[in-house]
Amino acid sequence: MADSQSLDALKQALRRLPGVGPKSAQRMAFHLLERDREGARAIAAALTTAVSRVRHCELCNNFSEETLCPVCSSPRRDKGTLCVVENPADLDAIELAGVYDGVYFVLMGHLAPLDGVGPDEIGVDKLMAVIEAKLPVREVILATNLTVEGEATADFIAELLRGRDIGVTRLARGVPVGGELEYMDHGTLAQAFQGRRQV
Amino acid sequence: MADSQSLDALKQALRRLPGVGPKSAQRMAFHLLERDREGARAIAAALTTAVSRVRHCELCNNFSEETLCPVCSSPRRDKGTLCVVENPADLDAIELAGVYDGVYFVLMGHLAPLDGVGPDEIGVDKLMAVIEAKLPVREVILATNLTVEGEATADFIAELLRGRDIGVTRLARGVPVGGELEYMDHGTLAQAFQGRRQV
Repeated sequence: MADSQSLDALKQALRRLPGVGPKSAQRMAFHLLERDREGARAIAAALTTAVSRVRHCELCNNFSEETLCPVCSSPRRDKGTLCVVENPADLDAIELAGVYDGVYFVLMGHLAPLDGVGPDEIGVDKLMAVIEAKLPVREVILATNLTVEGEATADFIAELLRGRDIGVTRLARGVPVGGELEYMDHGTLAQAFQGRRQV
Repeated sequence: MADSQSLDALKQALRRLPGVGPKSAQRMAFHLLERDREGARAIAAALTTAVSRVRHCELCNNFSEETLCPVCSSPRRDKGTLCVVENPADLDAIELAGVYDGVYFVLMGHLAPLDGVGPDEIGVDKLMAVIEAKLPVREVILATNLTVEGEATADFIAELLRGRDIGVTRLARGVPVGGELEYMDHGTLAQAFQGRRQV
């Protein structure tokens, strides 16, 4: 090999990015060194800044540079409604929809026993602590994904909340807006029939 | 959005990696911050080191931390044979095969007019300078890929070398070792028939 040591080290380091194998890492390293050294410096700086500044909001567990994130520190959010989501991206999607004025809890993952992700690996303990001690929660909306892992995670949390004076809900499921029945999977159609409503 | 500024900056920066769009950048940022901050530090350090240390070998144009790369500085390599490849990965493949004892020239790309890559964007000028002034080249092996771009690049360089007292060759093409005729494309079969040899 005619490769330099620091090039090899860079390829190895880039493989720590999720979804990046040896070929992609090599392509990224070559691209940055040959065509975008400014980009390489920018990525290094952004990583260093983010690692030192970004921590978790004390209430919602979302990424935040302050003790409390903007949502949790807003006086306009209803602290009695807590929407539990898997990831910051899910929270962003709900915020963009502009349909919810309560607060959130971000689990930062979902239960996936086969991948070694149990309740300790996601923020379940912190969620329970927030519900018990920090917020006057009346309702918990379990807005995890409708995947196998998301459903299992929601079931697990619902079980933990059983017996408390807190309403536990799950998002409605059915045919999405703009959806054509012809292209819906069996499970969605079954849910849509089961949950049909009087008009 | 409840995102922090440095998280946004990190997502933006990661999009400078080739093949990384907004969704992948977000996934990478979340993964590094939530599950692998050590990895984030390692990537930042490797990028910084590589950008400051890696430059190009003065002869072969490959990445190198020294003025001359290990191949070019080896007394055992035949400086009269110059193998022109597109990328460092191609050079690595040939080195691993262990079938070549000459030196290389790495173009760092191929001609791709539609993407704005002309002769100035790849190392053609430097290749000609090396051939004219630095190495006693008897033969140039054009080992660019057998793609449309690779062939065009080889043709372009062959044209530049015309009229000099230098042999210009191209790698043999045909059915690869282990190849089954049933699965070969028409072009490969045509090449294999044209280039058939007496046994």
